[in-house]
Amino acid sequence: MIRVAVDAMGGDHAPAVVIEGAAQAVKERPLSIILVGQKNLLTQEIERLGAGSGHFIIQNATEVVGMDESPSEALKKKKDSSIRVTFEMVGQGRADAAVSAGNSGATLATASFVLGRLEGVERPAIAGVLPTLKGPTVMIDAGANVDCKPHHLLQFGIMGAVFSQGILGVSNPRVGLMSIGEEGAKGNLVVKKAHELFSASSLNFIGNVEGRDVFRGDVDVIVCDGFVGNVSLKLSEGLAEAISLMLRAEIEKSLLARAGYLLCSSAFRRFKKKVDYAEYGGAPLLGINGIGIIAHGRSCPKAIKNAILMAAEFVSQKLNEHLLSNVRNSGDLQALGRRQVVSDR
Amino acid sequence: MIRVAVDAMGGDHAPAVVIEGAAQAVKERPLSIILVGQKNLLTQEIERLGAGSGHFIIQNATEVVGMDESPSEALKKKKDSSIRVTFEMVGQGRADAAVSAGNSGATLATASFVLGRLEGVERPAIAGVLPTLKGPTVMIDAGANVDCKPHHLLQFGIMGAVFSQGILGVSNPRVGLMSIGEEGAKGNLVVKKAHELFSASSLNFIGNVEGRDVFRGDVDVIVCDGFVGNVSLKLSEGLAEAISLMLRAEIEKSLLARAGYLLCSSAFRRFKKKVDYAEYGGAPLLGINGIGIIAHGRSCPKAIKNAILMAAEFVSQKLNEHLLSNVRNSGDLQALGRRQVVSDR
Repeated sequence: MIRVAVDAMGGDHAPAVVIEGAAQAVKERPLSIILVGQKNLLTQEIERLGAGSGHFIIQNATEVVGMDESPSEALKKKKDSSIRVTFEMVGQGRADAAVSAGNSGATLATASFVLGRLEGVERPAIAGVLPTLKGPTVMIDAGANVDCKPHHLLQFGIMGAVFSQGILGVSNPRVGLMSIGEEGAKGNLVVKKAHELFSASSLNFIGNVEGRDVFRGDVDVIVCDGFVGNVSLKLSEGLAEAISLMLRAEIEKSLLARAGYLLCSSAFRRFKKKVDYAEYGGAPLLGINGIGIIAHGRSCPKAIKNAILMAAEFVSQKLNEHLLSNVRNSGDLQALGRRQVVSDR
Repeated sequence: MIRVAVDAMGGDHAPAVVIEGAAQAVKERPLSIILVGQKNLLTQEIERLGAGSGHFIIQNATEVVGMDESPSEALKKKKDSSIRVTFEMVGQGRADAAVSAGNSGATLATASFVLGRLEGVERPAIAGVLPTLKGPTVMIDAGANVDCKPHHLLQFGIMGAVFSQGILGVSNPRVGLMSIGEEGAKGNLVVKKAHELFSASSLNFIGNVEGRDVFRGDVDVIVCDGFVGNVSLKLSEGLAEAISLMLRAEIEKSLLARAGYLLCSSAFRRFKKKVDYAEYGGAPLLGINGIGIIAHGRSCPKAIKNAILMAAEFVSQKLNEHLLSNVRNSGDLQALGRRQVVSDR
């Protein structure tokens, strides 16, 4: 049975939300779930929620990393934090995958520190999954690396393509480079250099994509640095929320519109389900020597459930073996990466 | 009477859309509009559209810059392009402001080249105006400068604040720095250094803002480099479009929902008007020695009309005088700018 270690103390509404999500996950798939956190608190909460203590193993971790704490400080000082112990379970072979909705910077730093990187990967990156008009698109890096070199972007592209093919089932995924114009000559210095590397690679590179292409679904993997990716994801989330609020406010203004809204509320619900981040649960950190999913800090139980199921799916699909062999076989990473490292200096 | 030079050949549906927009503008405000482009074509089109030739002065320009042409090539080779002649009208004192919906890179390069920069401004920047839950927010830079130094961002903040106060009427505008976390220590190298400059400035600096804050309306001026700004604006546009299409598709699936939609269609229309880019018309290029508005390439007549009216408003509000005196008085730009220039080297 696949074993998933879950940071029970991570997220805005932990541990309750995490326990509820874990309880939902074991109902959908046979899993061994290890809840990591303050043992007494977790035991109490499981009982209070009636979540069934028989479903979980509890692993004690005395410390908790706050959502606003400095990742490097947390890594240095809190050696018994729930995040750290969660990833150590994987590092020690006591779990197959780790999930945390805690401080994402700390999760990132801890995952890389505890598990190390896959051979050949210079910078692990977060693969965010976005709903589009034609199905999910991967945005990589969604926030792990804010300052990148061109060859890092190429590595992200290779990892994103493996993820898209292996997990999302896209054959020959189309890879695009996020920029501010379609032509290769458009973009900032890093992106322009990266365009050359992508063009020379064996990826199915379709060239630059612009912000307005993201949700059209005509590209399977969108590559950008973690600053642009993080801003893009949070902007999308905020805009979707704002649109819904503004629309709602207009509808509230008239009785007729309110009646009309009731009639189309099922359509609104279906739409909401389609674009709900909770459907995707979390974003994997690709390139680490293990499986780690970073869930949203505001995760609801469904999001936690889906993050756990995603982690289990990665294990059964042997994501990291695919990643490793593709990275090796592609040759791109080795040859171009090294060449670029030299020319960057 | 305020004189606005309009590039009649610029935009996806020029010259017809531009002429129609100009005709709408003169109905709303007494203006002298100079349409710049191929004289014969414009005369014919004005007649065909019944736009009233008495309202316009036509200024001949024999060349047209294509939407995909290289800006630097266009600037070098097409000395009689409609974009170039439009800005030369301002440079020669024959018009008070210029508007173009043409190739935005070429418009940018041409505006800076022909008009030069305001004293003390190192990099002119595009101020994009976004609708939010609480009124318009300025995003600067929206695409003029893809690679920026920290002190450039500070200059953008100062110019954005003047624009927000002078044109949008916001008193003591709140200025935020786009980043990937609220704390000053979060962000890429440039943003982290810029955070220090902003903190030491006399701006009403509220710290970092994240992507999800953009549409909440709790910040009046959002500062970022032109790469991030351009991606953000286009992403927002694309997402709003995608949401509307997805929602529409769900509504189409059921007769009941379609009936409901009809009942709330007035609410949808009001909402659409609120978020319609055409309401804002265009984005000013701040920091050039003259007034220039870059309109959207896909502008409809209403967008052109509003871009022209925005240009006229800038002239009557004496935007550049405000900009110049604020830039001078702030001291920030001079002192911090210079200090930073030295430390950047």
